[in-house]
Amino acid sequence: MSRQQREAIDTLLRSAPRSETPPTVEEQRSGFAAAIARPAPPDVATRKTTLGGRPALELTPAGASGPSHLLYLHGGGYVIGSPDTHAGLVGELARRARLRTTSVDYRLAPEHAFPAAVEDGLAAYRELLETGTDARDIVIGGDSAGGGLTLATLLAARDAGLPQPAAAVVFSPWVDLTVSGASAQSKDGIDPIFVEPDLHAYAELYIGAGDRSQPLASPLFADLTGLPPLLIQVGANELLLDDAVRLAGRAGADDVEVTLEIGSGLPHVFQHHYGRLDEADDALDRAARFVTARVLSHD
Amino acid sequence: MSRQQREAIDTLLRSAPRSETPPTVEEQRSGFAAAIARPAPPDVATRKTTLGGRPALELTPAGASGPSHLLYLHGGGYVIGSPDTHAGLVGELARRARLRTTSVDYRLAPEHAFPAAVEDGLAAYRELLETGTDARDIVIGGDSAGGGLTLATLLAARDAGLPQPAAAVVFSPWVDLTVSGASAQSKDGIDPIFVEPDLHAYAELYIGAGDRSQPLASPLFADLTGLPPLLIQVGANELLLDDAVRLAGRAGADDVEVTLEIGSGLPHVFQHHYGRLDEADDALDRAARFVTARVLSHD
Repeated sequence: MSRQQREAIDTLLRSAPRSETPPTVEEQRSGFAAAIARPAPPDVATRKTTLGGRPALELTPAGASGPSHLLYLHGGGYVIGSPDTHAGLVGELARRARLRTTSVDYRLAPEHAFPAAVEDGLAAYRELLETGTDARDIVIGGDSAGGGLTLATLLAARDAGLPQPAAAVVFSPWVDLTVSGASAQSKDGIDPIFVEPDLHAYAELYIGAGDRSQPLASPLFADLTGLPPLLIQVGANELLLDDAVRLAGRAGADDVEVTLEIGSGLPHVFQHHYGRLDEADDALDRAARFVTARVLSHD
Repeated sequence: MSRQQREAIDTLLRSAPRSETPPTVEEQRSGFAAAIARPAPPDVATRKTTLGGRPALELTPAGASGPSHLLYLHGGGYVIGSPDTHAGLVGELARRARLRTTSVDYRLAPEHAFPAAVEDGLAAYRELLETGTDARDIVIGGDSAGGGLTLATLLAARDAGLPQPAAAVVFSPWVDLTVSGASAQSKDGIDPIFVEPDLHAYAELYIGAGDRSQPLASPLFADLTGLPPLLIQVGANELLLDDAVRLAGRAGADDVEVTLEIGSGLPHVFQHHYGRLDEADDALDRAARFVTARVLSHD
C-alpha cells in the first residue's frame, strides 16, 4: 500500500500556484514543462527524428531489437506538452515493454487548431506502415489529450482504410470535449489538478466554435467498431474519470476488447510519478505487459 | 485468437431449446444443471460441508496450504444453480489461485425471496471470520446473480461493522434488478443466452413487489465506499454488459479500486467454457492472479 505516497503526491499537486490572471499559452507551456518533465531513463537512448512530417523523439530501450514499435502521443490539452515533457513517462513505458518508441511532436493549438493534431497522428502512423512496419507490430499510446488523440488516430486510420495496430494504451484519456461526464462535477475539489473551466478552456483553444462532439475531437461519440484491444488506466480522483468509464462502455458496446483500470486515490496521469508512487510503477508494468502480449513480434 | 472457438460457443448456446410454455422452476433448475454443470478438476478435492448454517461445497486444490480462503457465490438469477452446477468453474478458479474455497448453497427464490440470499452470504462470511480467518485472507467471488450477491454481501458486511475482505471477483455480475442498462436493448439478439424478459422474470421471483432498486438487491445503486479492490469480467455479447460497466463507474466514483475486463465476442459467464475457449482460460488465470496478489498470505 502506498497511502502515504498518494497523499504526498496529492499535496504536491495542490501546491501548484494558481495565478489570479490566466497564464498565457507560453506560460502554460513552460509551467507544465517545469512541473512534470523528467528525463528518459539512463538505459533508454533518445534521438531527435521526424515522423509523418513532424519532429519526434525516438526512444530506444536497451535490449529492444525486434520490429515492434510504440507510437506515443503526449498529453497537455492539445495546447501544451511535448515529447520532451514526456520523455520520462514514455521512456519508462518503452523500457518496461522493451519497445522502440517514437513520441511525436504533433501540432498544438491555438496555433494549429483541430484537426491538425489528428492529421499528424495519422501521418505518423501511416509513415510507420509505409516504411515497412507491420500494423500488428505497432501499438499506439497516449495520455490525457494524447489518449483522445490516440483514439482519434485509430478512427482516422480505420476511415482511411489502413489496418489497425495490435493494441492501444491510454492513460486518463480525454475523449469528451463537451465535458459531459458526471465526474466533471462529482470529482470537483477531489481532483487535485483540474477544475472544470480548465477543460473548457483547452477545448476552446483546440476547437473554437467547431462542434466539440464530432468523433475525431471527442472519440467517445464515435462508432468504435473495429478498434484493437484497448487498455484504459485512470485515477479515481479525476474530473476525467467518466471519460475513461464511458469510453470502456462505448467500446464494449461496439464489441471492442477493453481493460479498464481505476486506481483508488490517484490523480490525472498518475503514471508520471513512477519511482515515487508504487501505483505508477505497477500501472506502467501492467501497460507494458498488455502491449507485449499483443504485438506480433516480441523478444 | 479463438474466433472459431467463440463462434462455436455462440452456436452451442443458441441451440438450447426454448419451449413455448414457460418452464417450471424445477425444469429450469434441472435444465441449467444439464447445460452447464462440469465436475471439479481432478486435482481439486471436494467435500460437502456447511457454512453460515447452509450446505456448502468445499474445494481444496492440491498445494493449497495457507489460511487464505475464497468464498464463492454461484449464479443462476437467485432462482437456479448450486455449488454442484458450478463445481467445474469454481474448482478451476480455486486451482489456478491455489486457494481453499467454499461455495455456498445459499437459499433460492421463489421458495426464499430477498433478502434470504444476502443473509446467507453474510452468515457465511461471518463464520469464516469467527472461526479465525483474517479478513485480509478472504476473497469473495461470484458470477451473474452471484456477482450481485457478492457485492451485496460486501455491503451487508460493511453495514454490520465487519472488516472487508482482501478483494472481490465478479464474472458478468447482475447488479441492476431494474434492468435499466442500455445493453439490455442494444445487445438484444447479440446475447445468445438471455432476452430481457428472462431478467425481469428472475427479478420477479426474487423480489416480487419489493423495491428492485434497493441497494442489497441492486448494488449498482448503493454507496460502494470502502469496498475492496474489485475485478469485473464481462462479455461484450451480453445484455448485462452495462451492469458491469456502470458498476465500474459507480465504484470509481466512490474511490474503489476497479479492474474491468470486457471480452470481445463473448457471452454471459464465458468462464464456464474453460478448456474449450482460450478467453475463458485466460480470464480465469487473470482472476487467479488478481486474487493471489491481494490476499495477505499466499504460498
